[in-house]
Amino acid sequence: MQTDQRIVVAMAELLRRQGYAATGIKQVVAAAEAPIGSVYHHFPGGKRAVAEAALRQSGAAYGELVTALLAPHDDLVDGIESAFAEAAATIEQTGWVNMCPVSTVAGEVADAEPALREVSAEVFDEWITQGVGLFRERGLSDDDARSLIIAVITALEGAFVMARTLRSGEPVLAAGRSVAAYARTLTTPATVSAG
Amino acid sequence: MQTDQRIVVAMAELLRRQGYAATGIKQVVAAAEAPIGSVYHHFPGGKRAVAEAALRQSGAAYGELVTALLAPHDDLVDGIESAFAEAAATIEQTGWVNMCPVSTVAGEVADAEPALREVSAEVFDEWITQGVGLFRERGLSDDDARSLIIAVITALEGAFVMARTLRSGEPVLAAGRSVAAYARTLTTPATVSAG
Repeated sequence: MQTDQRIVVAMAELLRRQGYAATGIKQVVAAAEAPIGSVYHHFPGGKRAVAEAALRQSGAAYGELVTALLAPHDDLVDGIESAFAEAAATIEQTGWVNMCPVSTVAGEVADAEPALREVSAEVFDEWITQGVGLFRERGLSDDDARSLIIAVITALEGAFVMARTLRSGEPVLAAGRSVAAYARTLTTPATVSAG
Repeated sequence: MQTDQRIVVAMAELLRRQGYAATGIKQVVAAAEAPIGSVYHHFPGGKRAVAEAALRQSGAAYGELVTALLAPHDDLVDGIESAFAEAAATIEQTGWVNMCPVSTVAGEVADAEPALREVSAEVFDEWITQGVGLFRERGLSDDDARSLIIAVITALEGAFVMARTLRSGEPVLAAGRSVAAYARTLTTPATVSAG
C-alpha cells in the first residue's frame, strides 16, 4: 500500500475506535509506519485533511456495503430486513466494533469542526442519492425513496451506537423491524386502515 | 447554583458541543467559574467522574423530555408523529445544537472509555424502561413496547446526528414517518395484507 493510503487507513481505524479529538497525528503516522514528514507532503492540511480523506473513503465503502446488502433483493421489505439482520450479526461477531466512523465523527465534530461537518454532509448526501436510485428501481416515487433511505440510514446509525453501548444486537433488529414496517406501507398503499 | 452542580452543567454543555476527548477539565472549571480544587473535592475521579455525572443528568432530562412529548397523546401514532415534528422544529430553532450529549459521547467513547460506555448504557436502559411503561399503558405487549421504544430512540438519535450534519430538519421528519408507520402496524394488527 502506498504511504498516503496507509496514512488514510490508519486514520480511519483510529477515528472509528476513539474519534477525532483523541487522535493525534503522531499516533496516525506510528500506526501507518510512515515518517511524520510524509503526512505533510501528502496532506498539507495535516490532521484535518487526513481525517477528511478517511471520512470520504470510509463513507464510500459503507455506502457500497449497504447497497450490496440491499441490491440482491427485488422485494424492498425483504432487503431491508435482511440488511439489518446482517448488520446485527456483523456488529456482534466483530465484538461491537464501530462499523463506520462517519456518523460518530459527525456527531462529535458537527459544532466544533466545520470542515469535517461538511465532508460528513457530502457523505450522507451521497448515501441518500445512492439509496434513492436503488429504491426508485423498486418502484418508489422520488419523495418516498428519499424518505425511506433517510429512515434506513438514521435507524442504522442510531442503532449502531446503541448496540455498541449496550453490547447487544437487539437495537439493530428493532430498528430493522421499524424501517421494514415503513417500507411495507410505502409498497402496499392499499393496506391503509378503513377506520 | 451549587459549585458541584455548576461543574456538571458546564461539562454537559461542553460534551454536547465538542465531545469528551476535546474537553479538558480546566475548560470545565473556567466555564463553571469554579476553582480547580473544587472539582477534585466534589469529584475525586476527576474529568471522567464529572462526565459520568453530566451524562446521567442529561440522560434523565432527555428521558423526561421525550416522555413529556409522548405522554399527552392517547394515540401512540399521533404521539410519535408529534414528538418527532417537535424535535425537528426545536433542533432547527436552536441552530442545530446537539440536543443531548449521551448518544454522541456514547458513540465517541464506546471503545475507548469503558466507564463512560457503562454509564451511557445505564441511561439507554432507563429510557427503554420508561418507554416500555408508557407504551404498555397504550395497550402494547411487553415485547412490542420494548421494540417500539428502541426504534424511537435509535431513530431520534440517528436523525439528530444527520440533521446537525446536513443542517436540515428533514432527517428527523423522515425518521418520524418511519417509526410512526411501525407504531401503526403494532396498534392495528388487522391491517396485515391478505396478499
